[in-house]
Amino acid sequence: MPKLLLLLSLAAGFSAIGYAQTAADSALIRSIYDEALARGEAYENLRQLTKGIGHRLSGSESASRAMEWGASVLEGYGADSVWVLPVMVPSWTRGDVAEASARVGGHVHPLHITALGGSVGTPGDAPLTAKVVQVKSLDALKDMPAENVQGRIVLFNRPMDPVLINTGAAYGGAVDQRGRGATAAAEAGAVGALVRSMTHALDTLPHTGAMYYKEGVDSVPSAAISTVDASWLGQQLKEHPDLEVTLQMNCRAFPDVEQGNVIGEWRGSERPNEIITLGGHLDSWDIGEGAHDDGAGIVHTLEVLRILKAIGYTPKRTIRFVLFINEENGNRGGKAYAAAAKVDHVTTNKRYVAALESDAGGFVPRGFRIDATDAATELVRSWSPLFDPYNVHQFRRGGAGVDIGPLKELDPRPTMMGLSPDGQRYFDFHHSAQDVFENVHKRELELGAATFAAAVMMLDQHLPSSGTAN
Amino acid sequence: MPKLLLLLSLAAGFSAIGYAQTAADSALIRSIYDEALARGEAYENLRQLTKGIGHRLSGSESASRAMEWGASVLEGYGADSVWVLPVMVPSWTRGDVAEASARVGGHVHPLHITALGGSVGTPGDAPLTAKVVQVKSLDALKDMPAENVQGRIVLFNRPMDPVLINTGAAYGGAVDQRGRGATAAAEAGAVGALVRSMTHALDTLPHTGAMYYKEGVDSVPSAAISTVDASWLGQQLKEHPDLEVTLQMNCRAFPDVEQGNVIGEWRGSERPNEIITLGGHLDSWDIGEGAHDDGAGIVHTLEVLRILKAIGYTPKRTIRFVLFINEENGNRGGKAYAAAAKVDHVTTNKRYVAALESDAGGFVPRGFRIDATDAATELVRSWSPLFDPYNVHQFRRGGAGVDIGPLKELDPRPTMMGLSPDGQRYFDFHHSAQDVFENVHKRELELGAATFAAAVMMLDQHLPSSGTAN
Repeated sequence: MPKLLLLLSLAAGFSAIGYAQTAADSALIRSIYDEALARGEAYENLRQLTKGIGHRLSGSESASRAMEWGASVLEGYGADSVWVLPVMVPSWTRGDVAEASARVGGHVHPLHITALGGSVGTPGDAPLTAKVVQVKSLDALKDMPAENVQGRIVLFNRPMDPVLINTGAAYGGAVDQRGRGATAAAEAGAVGALVRSMTHALDTLPHTGAMYYKEGVDSVPSAAISTVDASWLGQQLKEHPDLEVTLQMNCRAFPDVEQGNVIGEWRGSERPNEIITLGGHLDSWDIGEGAHDDGAGIVHTLEVLRILKAIGYTPKRTIRFVLFINEENGNRGGKAYAAAAKVDHVTTNKRYVAALESDAGGFVPRGFRIDATDAATELVRSWSPLFDPYNVHQFRRGGAGVDIGPLKELDPRPTMMGLSPDGQRYFDFHHSAQDVFENVHKRELELGAATFAAAVMMLDQHLPSSGTAN
Repeated sequence: MPKLLLLLSLAAGFSAIGYAQTAADSALIRSIYDEALARGEAYENLRQLTKGIGHRLSGSESASRAMEWGASVLEGYGADSVWVLPVMVPSWTRGDVAEASARVGGHVHPLHITALGGSVGTPGDAPLTAKVVQVKSLDALKDMPAENVQGRIVLFNRPMDPVLINTGAAYGGAVDQRGRGATAAAEAGAVGALVRSMTHALDTLPHTGAMYYKEGVDSVPSAAISTVDASWLGQQLKEHPDLEVTLQMNCRAFPDVEQGNVIGEWRGSERPNEIITLGGHLDSWDIGEGAHDDGAGIVHTLEVLRILKAIGYTPKRTIRFVLFINEENGNRGGKAYAAAAKVDHVTTNKRYVAALESDAGGFVPRGFRIDATDAATELVRSWSPLFDPYNVHQFRRGGAGVDIGPLKELDPRPTMMGLSPDGQRYFDFHHSAQDVFENVHKRELELGAATFAAAVMMLDQHLPSSGTAN
């Protein structure tokens, strides 16, 4: 940031809040962190969600159980009302077979794979054997002569860039292979796709995640392959370009089923028609336990209610705690919530002034991604000195979250903030069998909850009534 | 920080470096991080140190092996010269017996303990059985009637404060029990001390650490007890104040032996008489592998040399890479280095202008503790915009490190910086059997090395020749 802009924005920040208010905010924030660290329940709630219920794929029975659990915690923590906003969600099962092996020079080498979410199984659920072609990008596949691809399995093998400090950016730079690889492969005449797992770690864990087919293009089976196996296979292909891989999966899709967003509401004392939404997503992938993704965001959300009640806070605005469904493979929960909000905007005097999301893991909080008008962004940035004692320093513009994303279309647009935990370890676990309770750290989870709660409190206290700080 | 001071210090910072220089620094820093993250050797070096050599208590054979290993890596990375500064270090062995149990109502309940470093064994290495008195502080013990303490074992059971964000401060607020508990116990007529392990975690791991006896006061055996056992024992004492604990340990001290600081020097091209020292400590406790404490600091130090050579950097000043000995139980390595520096100051034209230390773990870097004159502190703080892209935000005053600490007495005093990694997990592992390679994260370790290297480069480039920026 240029010098002058930095100085101006800091000066603006300090003038935006008077000193008396700063002292009061500072004391409130300290009591929020004290409550989270000394008497926190986020960790125990996460244990219940992950160990008691387990993974929670949209459409699954365990996702329904998680909805019931979430509603009962919101009620227990004293929400004024709790309801479910119904959402039709996809239903897909991984099946019980996901195997692959490479035959190289007479040896059969097993590969660690798992189906990508939404993939079809292999034809007839039977083994599919084909030669393999390796590419590093979707574009590289397009440039390839048809005969090098036809009838083969495409190995998409571009790693996440290790030199990017922001691991989310490294993920964003690689994940097109997972989302669109199968379709690109089918368009080039291939019979399947193997996609290098989205992680910096070199290990044997496959990481699943969403993939989508395109109408009019054949649906070919698509699996994640561990980074160790992807690197090995890429190396082998240089010496043995005709090696064959056998892939077998019996995953499949079923008709949509009804689940929903679980919503708890704490009514505002001064401006009850102005709504601050916060949430995470209750659904997860069906391997591991969805502990970081997004059990952490769920228990952060619940803990904000508990903490603010425990410290005797009285909200000015109405605060909505939303446990979204179906973030992972469709975002239908986020879309349904925004659609309902749009109706409110048109037919009632309810105004969705702010929205916050926690969906980047239970790691130590580093700051926020802010998606808001310039004025609202500067307002939020002006709070940074209040967060400095808690080592919360990032106040960067950027997408605030997938679930709250569709609220951006409201007019006036809500001020949106995404909690930014440290991201260095996130993709070690993300969408894998290692995304389990044991890999979440109690204090880091608690610090995240406190940081989230402090942001909610500050927005409730200081956001101008228009909701946009303009 | 008051508004005006903050604005002024930022303004001073920006004027301290011209824009052209900022761009050059920024590019250099980017190449440092690229090198660390794409071609880093810190993680592999840590594997060799922890898995190849293991723990490295001062005076042990493995500490001698680590000295040889460190010297060979410094030579391999192209240090102009490598030598050992001899240091007499204490020699103490844990022995092979460290057992304790509590007898409560006829049941014998085993306790997880380990000897504190420097403790004597139980008399005759035999079991010592005594009643127990619990206190929460050294002062509380003093206030206690003599008959409540005499002949008993004192359980020092004050936990680390969970609401302090800085876990090092929480450690500092509890560790007097470990360092001075045994002496306080003996002064009150007790026969031994059990000290609650220095960790926030509630688990069954005992954490060792240094304790010291006082001349003229009996040396009584002193052990760390896990937090789970300390809490349990404290609870039991309320109902069974006469319960007995049996303690047995055969640890003991031996005469001092000679080891030393391993020093590698890279001579400066413009001001070779001005020395920038950086380092960590090669010794560790004798349980676990000393991976975070301080294997991380050692490989950070080695990696700075490798990175700066790899990117083609030419240092203006002489850079000294110091692998200190005996930080854990005496700091004799740090004292010996400062004593030699003092001689240089008096008898030669060598000037120790800056010193940096990494001894707070291999976690994601958050910033620096700065121990310097006001002017030098402001200079270092003026660099913060260059570190912001790497999520390095803390530029706080404070102790920069135990090993470099004695250099503070030089006149003019060196500018000192301690690397501050995130501390939330540090005391989970610190001085315990869990301080092992597997608990260090590759990218976090690499980011720490790059941050350390960037600070060395910036000091080399921008520290005024006096060494104090005055």
